Amino acid sequence: MKVVLLSGGVGGAKLAAGLHDVLDPGALTVIGNVGDDLEVLGLHVSPDLDSVLYALAGLNDGERGWGRAGETWNALASARAWGGEGWFMLGDLDIGLHLVRSQALRAGEPLSAVTARLVEAAGLATRLVPASDDRLRTFLVTPAGTLPFQEWFVARGHRDEVDALVFEGAREARPAPGVLDALAAADAIVIAPSNPYVSIHPILAVPGIREALATRAVRCVAVSPLVGGRAVRGPLDRMLTRMAGGTTPAHVTNCYEDLLDALVIDRADAPGAGEVPVVVADTLMTDREAARRVALTTLEAAS
Amino acid sequence: MKVVLLSGGVGGAKLAAGLHDVLDPGALTVIGNVGDDLEVLGLHVSPDLDSVLYALAGLNDGERGWGRAGETWNALASARAWGGEGWFMLGDLDIGLHLVRSQALRAGEPLSAVTARLVEAAGLATRLVPASDDRLRTFLVTPAGTLPFQEWFVARGHRDEVDALVFEGAREARPAPGVLDALAAADAIVIAPSNPYVSIHPILAVPGIREALATRAVRCVAVSPLVGGRAVRGPLDRMLTRMAGGTTPAHVTNCYEDLLDALVIDRADAPGAGEVPVVVADTLMTDREAARRVALTTLEAAS
Repeated sequence: MKVVLLSGGVGGAKLAAGLHDVLDPGALTVIGNVGDDLEVLGLHVSPDLDSVLYALAGLNDGERGWGRAGETWNALASARAWGGEGWFMLGDLDIGLHLVRSQALRAGEPLSAVTARLVEAAGLATRLVPASDDRLRTFLVTPAGTLPFQEWFVARGHRDEVDALVFEGAREARPAPGVLDALAAADAIVIAPSNPYVSIHPILAVPGIREALATRAVRCVAVSPLVGGRAVRGPLDRMLTRMAGGTTPAHVTNCYEDLLDALVIDRADAPGAGEVPVVVADTLMTDREAARRVALTTLEAAS
Repeated sequence: MKVVLLSGGVGGAKLAAGLHDVLDPGALTVIGNVGDDLEVLGLHVSPDLDSVLYALAGLNDGERGWGRAGETWNALASARAWGGEGWFMLGDLDIGLHLVRSQALRAGEPLSAVTARLVEAAGLATRLVPASDDRLRTFLVTPAGTLPFQEWFVARGHRDEVDALVFEGAREARPAPGVLDALAAADAIVIAPSNPYVSIHPILAVPGIREALATRAVRCVAVSPLVGGRAVRGPLDRMLTRMAGGTTPAHVTNCYEDLLDALVIDRADAPGAGEVPVVVADTLMTDREAARRVALTTLEAAS
């Protein structure tokens, strides 16, 4: 059973790890969001791709919720002391990856190619593909102005309410090699429990990807990122309330218009009537075993 | 008393620190070699400038002899694990500086400007100026072929005999802003106990700098890098034997042709008759106090 997962960062990374574990080796392709990508200290950082890579490889810090376990912060402290920008947390182990990727990108290697090399270096059979090799950046329209994603999310602690999103470069972006092939070959498509607005919509904004989902011949199932109407992490509940009018399963479904055949929701959000059938489960992925259980429930709903 | 020091890496950095301590604040300008500069993992590394900066700021690792005290190596280990180049040792604290400098250079800031910012960030009154902002790279002509400096020095452990040196880009290079002004305003010029061939000659190869020394109105004193005819570190004794025919003070003097008014030599190399007067001292700078003593002896010889 070939599965494609559309994924953002942390929450999506957990489900990616769960699917990776329960599927046959090589059966999973993760299409990752690049709208959050940024340049910091001259390094190209792809936070969502890295969260997925670290989770798949078991290198992620489960307690902190982002970055690598056993991380140290000496290079960043040094950079700050020498007058460099220090607003974005980059650990030493993390920087090692960013150095390798940034060097490759500057040498002209596409993001998808260097990502494939990183996955291979980790010895993983799962494929991880950025939605696009082209520049695509998420901006938030807020009462304080239109802000780049990481300025809003990290520097300003996502305190500004969001009225709309802009995916700069999306219209001209092409799906990265392998994205449309994987979708065409998939036996099931899964949308991760990521923030629809900032993690999944930028993927769907790449011309061809939404169309591939809309014309699919297989089932597409999303896992709701809400538990009891609240986001597990981050500002999603506030965004849904303001932009969609509420935080029920139906409000999540509406984020994906007509793309879903089912929505996996948490018991706390049941019964959750809406336009698509819901599957009720314990969706909180507190550890890898829990992620495998959510993955199995999701695959069942997608079969 | 305004002093200009021409300096390579470690040995020169020690004398730079000694001069910095014994001179009035702001009286010292160090002109640093850039022939050893390299790009590694996409970072611009200036080993000699950094050795001087770290020594001046008291951040250097005295035992290891290069790099920073309290250094960690996590980013490099990570980069290697992700398939990145790992032949050049870069510590996490060191990488913090390289990130700041590389980002500035890519944004178009000249090396001299970012170096000045780094010196300022360290709170130092001494000026540190690269010989040139232009690209100048040292190559070694060896029986194994012509090798870039760091490939010869680090990757091959300077095991190849050297027949000649090539300073690529030197002819087109211009002295960095402040270099000729500092030399013109100096009350004394000092050549550090660095390797003449790979550390000082690349500085002198920048058009205008050798001429400024040759037409100086003040004294120019070198400190011999030899102790008992041997290099304290590195391959200088082998290079002198092969290219100059010996390792006496006279052979060191000959490396600087007619630029010297005196040579400070170690007791182990006395009496050291040659074309210029010698001053005998304990030149081994085992700690900062020893460096201050060598600095005072050198300044006396330069007055």
